[in-house]
Formats: sequence, C-alpha cells, structure tokens
Amino acid sequence: MSADLLIEEVHFRRNWINPYFLGRKSLLVNLSDLAAMGARPYACLLSLGLPASLVGEYFEKFIIGFLEECDRFEIPLIGGDLSRSEKIVVSVTVVGYVASGVPLYRSGAREGDSIILVGDVGVSELGLRLIRQRSSTHLKEITDLPSLESWAGGPDCYRWVLAHFLPEIHLEVAMWLQEHKLANSMIDVSDGLGCDLLHILEESACSAEIGLEDIPLPPGVDQITTASRELILDGGEDYALLFTCSQAHLERLKQSYPPSYPPLRVIGRIVRGEAELRLVSDSGSEVYHRKGFDHFS
Amino acid sequence: MSADLLIEEVHFRRNWINPYFLGRKSLLVNLSDLAAMGARPYACLLSLGLPASLVGEYFEKFIIGFLEECDRFEIPLIGGDLSRSEKIVVSVTVVGYVASGVPLYRSGAREGDSIILVGDVGVSELGLRLIRQRSSTHLKEITDLPSLESWAGGPDCYRWVLAHFLPEIHLEVAMWLQEHKLANSMIDVSDGLGCDLLHILEESACSAEIGLEDIPLPPGVDQITTASRELILDGGEDYALLFTCSQAHLERLKQSYPPSYPPLRVIGRIVRGEAELRLVSDSGSEVYHRKGFDHFS
Repeated sequence: MSADLLIEEVHFRRNWINPYFLGRKSLLVNLSDLAAMGARPYACLLSLGLPASLVGEYFEKFIIGFLEECDRFEIPLIGGDLSRSEKIVVSVTVVGYVASGVPLYRSGAREGDSIILVGDVGVSELGLRLIRQRSSTHLKEITDLPSLESWAGGPDCYRWVLAHFLPEIHLEVAMWLQEHKLANSMIDVSDGLGCDLLHILEESACSAEIGLEDIPLPPGVDQITTASRELILDGGEDYALLFTCSQAHLERLKQSYPPSYPPLRVIGRIVRGEAELRLVSDSGSEVYHRKGFDHFS
Repeated sequence: MSADLLIEEVHFRRNWINPYFLGRKSLLVNLSDLAAMGARPYACLLSLGLPASLVGEYFEKFIIGFLEECDRFEIPLIGGDLSRSEKIVVSVTVVGYVASGVPLYRSGAREGDSIILVGDVGVSELGLRLIRQRSSTHLKEITDLPSLESWAGGPDCYRWVLAHFLPEIHLEVAMWLQEHKLANSMIDVSDGLGCDLLHILEESACSAEIGLEDIPLPPGVDQITTASRELILDGGEDYALLFTCSQAHLERLKQSYPPSYPPLRVIGRIVRGEAELRLVSDSGSEVYHRKGFDHFS
C-alpha cells in the first residue's frame, strides 16, 4: 500500500493544469509507487479537498480523468472522502500485490549490480519550465492531446509537456522484473535520478558509479552541459524506473527482456563503500551532491 | 478500507487543539469508520501536509499522539506521505477485516428492526461550543487530562471537551455485533444522529420512527427543549454506534450483550415506507429535516 499527497501551489497550480489531466496524473503517480515495488495494482482510494466553488464542473472533470486511469489499469475506486478546503488537496492511497515471491525494495542492491534505467529523466522538468515560462492561463482549458500539441508548438515541447501532465509509468516492466526475479532493488524516479539512486544506496548501504554519458538526454537537448547535467540528475516527476541487477542475471535480463518494452539502459554499477554516488565522465569523476526536490525548502 | 480528510479551519483549528490530541483524534475518527462495518483494524497510512514552520515540534507531538492510538489498537503505520502545505492537512487511510461472515453495511435495515444506539450524542458539539465560546488560545498548550479538566472547570464541561478531543469509539462493541450476527445494518454517528440514520434509511430503502425521549441527553442537559433536540439530532463527531437489530434477535442481543460494554438504547424502529425519519414524542410526531454538517455550506 502506498499513499501520496498532491497539494495546490506545492505540487501543481490550478492555472497550469486542467482538472481532467490532474485527475489522471493523481492516479498515475501513485501507481508508479506500486511499480517501484513490482506490485500489481488492486484498488485505490481518493480523498479530495476542494474550494466550494470547484465542487461542480472542476470536480467532475477531475473524477472523469481519475476514473479513466482506474479503467485503464483495471482497478476499482473503493473509498475516500470529499471535504471543503481552501487549496485543492488530492490524497490517493493505492493497494497492490505480488502474485508470488516478494516485492522489490530499495534495500536489495548488492556490490557488482548493474544500475539500469527504463524511461526518461529530465523531460517533465523541461515541461514544467516551459509552462512556467509561458505562464499561459489558456493551458488550464486544454483537455485533449491535439490542443496540447498545438499549445506546445513543436514535437520536443509537446513531449516535455506531455511528460509533465501524463507521465508514462512503467508498471508492466516493473511487474515483469519482479515476476522473473531479475532485479535486486528498485525505485521509481520521482524526485530526481541522483536523489532517488541515493535512496537505494542509503537503504542498501553501498556506493555507486554512474556514467554521465550513459544517461539518455531529453528530446531537444543535444549535449551534456552543466545545465543539462542538472536536468537529468535532478529533474523530478518523470517516473522512470531505476533498478539494479546482479552480474549473474544481466545476460538473462538482456536476452529475455520483451522488445516491446521501453529500452533498458545500463547507466552504472553498485560498488562497495558508503552511500555515495560518483559521476563518471570523460573529464574525470566527482561525487554527486543531492539537489532533489525538498518539500520544505 | 476507509479514508478520511481532516483539514485545518474546516475540521479543526490550530489554536483550539494541541497536535498531540489532534494526532490521537485523527486515528480515532478513522477507526470509527471501521467500527461502523464491524471490522477489526489491521493497518493504517498517514499523509500529512504541514506549513514549514510546524515540521519540528508540532509534527513530533502529532506523531506521538497518532502512534499512541496505533499502539492501543495494535495496528502498524505502514505508509504515507509528508508534504508542505499552507494549512494543516491530515489524510488517514485505515484497513480492516472481518474474521468470518460479512461486514455490516448501511443497507441491511429491514422493516420491524429495532434501532439501537450505543454511546452519546450531542456531547462533542457541546465541547466545541464551549471551546468556541471561550476561544482560549491557552487550550492549544494542553496535552494532559488533568490540565484539560482544570481548563474545563467542572465535570460536565470536562466530559464535553474530552468527547470533542478524544471521542470514545466503539470498535469492541461493533466487532462483537458483527461476530454474533446481531445487527442488520450499522453506521457510526459522525455527522449527527438524524443525518446518519437517514443514510441507513436511504441505503436500506425504508422509513423509521424514533422516540425523542429515548435518546440519552448529554451530561448537564436536563430536558428536551428545541435547543437540546437539535443538539442530540444534529450534533456531530460523537462517534456513537447506531445499528438495527431484527425482532427475532432482539432478546438474544439484550441477554448476551456484555455488561462491561456501554449500554444499549433502543431508540426506535424501522417501518415500511420511503426514506424518512419520524420523531415521536408526547406532544405528537413530525418528520425530521436533515441539518447535519454540510462540508460545502
């Protein structure tokens, strides 16, 4: 079971996202927490705090979006609450299970494991920056993808905004890894690649080296600069899957991984030592310092 | 499973309740939702939104209170979230189960059932009124019962405030009723006796008559006046248990009901008809009109 809060003006702005997309995203980010453990979704609960003025149309659009994702992942909405609130509050609880074996934890990484990334990093952050830069209130009226594409004005910008509104979560991949016992540890990248990898290192009591050139760059970003480095290491809300796989299983993983899934990218390895992340590139190596999202900064 | 939101300035005021009591109450009111179904608590999740200034001492006191009630009811806190928020947001999810048989629902009331109340009504509302009337900011410093008693200044006032801060929930009674199959329908009185009984009537598609003289009056209230009537019918947050029992089972219920439990009070009966509640007293009978707490009024 997992629970996540989304609060207006902390996690989103009413002017920058339509309630229909917000409803969809609210379930997606919670299901990604189940994906992080390799669990299959079973049911969900939704508690919603809304200003009285939003109880009509806004509520309905939100619920339509939320229930669409419930349908897509075949889970029922089994409970929750509705309350008045000055700011919009979305509190979702999800329940999942593993059919056999044990769920994947952050604590299972072992020396020698390969560190593998499935999905993008830094793309959602680019979407957020674009939205913030344009601060377009027209955006909050948009509920369909063609209009969003036209708002974005180009294929890269569209991918950025889409990643921010409707992140691609990797439940299928995660369940497959759990079922085939091919991952030692796993997390979903919600706060940022560097920060979330450190969570694995801290709970597994080990160290890691990753190759900066091995991390995929977002569409529209061509080379590794100080700025793009920060983007891929610290950009949050992409919900990529980050896991570790022992050397003994790596070949089997590569050979049996379904080609229809998003590509596996080996970006580094687990080494002995304290919970520390080393960034390796052509120009040398250095220790990563956490810059991920701090809710109370 | 059940989820409830508590939001600052909607459900409570930071100046009127200490975080330690708020932490305890937050779990209690959620466990009362499990009691309503006759379910045994199994686990809980807590998502908390807090202003940055409250993350230290306030958070700690809240958690101490919350975990004290987890200990008392022997359930683990298995997940949740912590986020920044302008107003305090408490979102709790509880999980429970019934060891055998089916949970109790609002929809099971049948013509001829006796309507039975366990616990008080109107007492928490008197506590809230007292607190509001005195608007004492000293109250938010109080975390122990002797200080609360001395703040209250008398035994009746103390019972009122205590009911408001630490409602007595009736999990044991509820589980016993479910286990012994002695209730047809059940609900916990959170919005008010009239309003919550109407929930049973609506979901069971039947009508009810209750005797105003059969409802217990709060301590310090001597007679049924227009004001005290409103208090016992519309006062919320007492978390009394309201259930219906068939005539065939009523004698067995009365005889086997453990004497250590709070007294059973037969306050009326289910009759054929539309979802309507009739209030019967010496001076005649009339239809009850819902006045329970409306979150969006």
